[in-house]
Amino acid sequence: MIIPVEWTDEGVRMLDQRLLPLEEVWLMLKSYTDVADGIRDMVVRGAPAIGVSCAYGIALGVKNFVGTNVNDLEEELDYICDVLGKTRPTAINLFWAIDRMKRKFGELKGAGSDVSGIKAALIAEAKDIHDEDIESQRLIAQFGGELLNDGDSVLTHCNAGALATGGVWGTALGVIRGAKEQGKKVSVIADETRPYLQGARLTAWELLKDEIPVTLITDNQSGHVMKKGRVNAVVVGSDRIAANGDVANKIGTYMVAVLARQHGIPFYVAAPMSTVDMNCPTGEEIPIEERDIREVTHIGDIQLVPEGVSVSNFAFDVTPNEFVDAIITEKGVARKPYSESLRRMFED
Amino acid sequence: MIIPVEWTDEGVRMLDQRLLPLEEVWLMLKSYTDVADGIRDMVVRGAPAIGVSCAYGIALGVKNFVGTNVNDLEEELDYICDVLGKTRPTAINLFWAIDRMKRKFGELKGAGSDVSGIKAALIAEAKDIHDEDIESQRLIAQFGGELLNDGDSVLTHCNAGALATGGVWGTALGVIRGAKEQGKKVSVIADETRPYLQGARLTAWELLKDEIPVTLITDNQSGHVMKKGRVNAVVVGSDRIAANGDVANKIGTYMVAVLARQHGIPFYVAAPMSTVDMNCPTGEEIPIEERDIREVTHIGDIQLVPEGVSVSNFAFDVTPNEFVDAIITEKGVARKPYSESLRRMFED
Repeated sequence: MIIPVEWTDEGVRMLDQRLLPLEEVWLMLKSYTDVADGIRDMVVRGAPAIGVSCAYGIALGVKNFVGTNVNDLEEELDYICDVLGKTRPTAINLFWAIDRMKRKFGELKGAGSDVSGIKAALIAEAKDIHDEDIESQRLIAQFGGELLNDGDSVLTHCNAGALATGGVWGTALGVIRGAKEQGKKVSVIADETRPYLQGARLTAWELLKDEIPVTLITDNQSGHVMKKGRVNAVVVGSDRIAANGDVANKIGTYMVAVLARQHGIPFYVAAPMSTVDMNCPTGEEIPIEERDIREVTHIGDIQLVPEGVSVSNFAFDVTPNEFVDAIITEKGVARKPYSESLRRMFED
Repeated sequence: MIIPVEWTDEGVRMLDQRLLPLEEVWLMLKSYTDVADGIRDMVVRGAPAIGVSCAYGIALGVKNFVGTNVNDLEEELDYICDVLGKTRPTAINLFWAIDRMKRKFGELKGAGSDVSGIKAALIAEAKDIHDEDIESQRLIAQFGGELLNDGDSVLTHCNAGALATGGVWGTALGVIRGAKEQGKKVSVIADETRPYLQGARLTAWELLKDEIPVTLITDNQSGHVMKKGRVNAVVVGSDRIAANGDVANKIGTYMVAVLARQHGIPFYVAAPMSTVDMNCPTGEEIPIEERDIREVTHIGDIQLVPEGVSVSNFAFDVTPNEFVDAIITEKGVARKPYSESLRRMFED
């Protein structure tokens, strides 16, 4: 059972995903700035895991606040949330966690809590967010597992596994695990996912641990394996889903979605409701993070490209809703038109 | 001006493309087995360059034959061709060069040439193959250049440049160079092309040398840049074109072709007639090379994937003719239906 981030009395314990699969190193982050750095530098990644980590980062910053004045703590909280909010722009779960922690603070302040009461309650709130995240994934696994058939070969892109979430199930890999729980034999084709190689490093690692059969391919092979009839379904996670069902996810997801459509292969997105941004009408409004080009130009210290070449490194792309056959959430399976089905799920 | 392979009195001189872009090392190959190793190990790669190198390898093997009996030389030639023919299965130019050198031998033997006469004539034939290859590319550049417009941003996959051919122009990059010769400003978006990174290492290097603007992207970004309207045309090379116009090329080409169609972007294939295999009715019959998985699992000595994961490494895929808007050859631009247009070009 993989839980990549946890609250401890000493601080936030985080598995350093940058070193996987070769080394399994756990870091103890003792300040909210450590957590912010960890999110920005991708010690932890994946929208739900970023949400949980952000909540813990806020709890840690609040816990470390020295003072007894609630208004001063509120100022500190705003500052903490500002710093954390600037780490990764695309994953909506980051802002969702900030909103929820701030809302909780507002309730506590309104109810007249003192600083030590607020500290305890915000730590509890962050732990609740974590617990709810795992419970959401359990439900996603159950609902999503039902969409797969015995014997299916499922292609996934990036890592939307336990490592990308609060742990245990994962979103896209949760669906695989859910199908397995339901007694189905399912195997996985994992795109390596350049440039950061989350598929090669993390998805392969996770699935090997769970003894789920996995074949790793370069991203370039996804069209070929679909054409050869080796893929029965595609399941991916998401960093932000717009109100109309447009899906931002790891760069290359759009490509896989277009190819899946070309081959009549169902394309499923698995994500908790905290990934759905009802304030974002379409994918056009989702900010797409551009990351350091060194992720593309180097592997470790090995330089792959000639000096002086211009490089672009968009970290995400948007898959228009028309390519998405279902969005699997903890509230059930949303189908087109998503503007209606997602709204209904929020109103539930 | 880049000419990656040349005949010299000492042997076949070859640029070691495995070390580009960081080091520019030339090897002097003194036996046909050295040349066979060079082709198999990708010192040289790209279908037209493989064809030229194979012809030179045969010439070198024949030159090194010790003896005066023409029948013995014929036996040796068959053996040499067997060894060279087993290096790379997909590139038809390899077999085309073998056929042509054997045919020439047959003519010479039939005409009563002696061993030293045959040696000189086969060296001359290999040089002719090289010269004709460069001339073909010049014509491809001219015909293909006319398909591009001033200001076009052209996406290419892998390296179909001077490095992939006998030199100077290249096929896909020949089209870019041809457009430039015609006074058009054209820029290039180069897919890095995992696993072997021919785009990142070779295409970027070649275009920087020629001062043609190039932006490198991971393969995963091709859909995103097309969706953002940044691509006006796609031009790629080919390792083998079936009689019906199905195109085998570097793995990932099919993906790019499907995406180009999705976005209404013309998809062009540039290749000499020696790449067209009229004996291969459709892409289904083209053998697809699977290469060592170490190309996927490692970069240099850095291991990217966990121990024990299953990996697939298909080196090529087939793009069905329906996705190909034109095939640019030295005989002009072939359009659909290719079974007719390609046959006409052969009959010309």
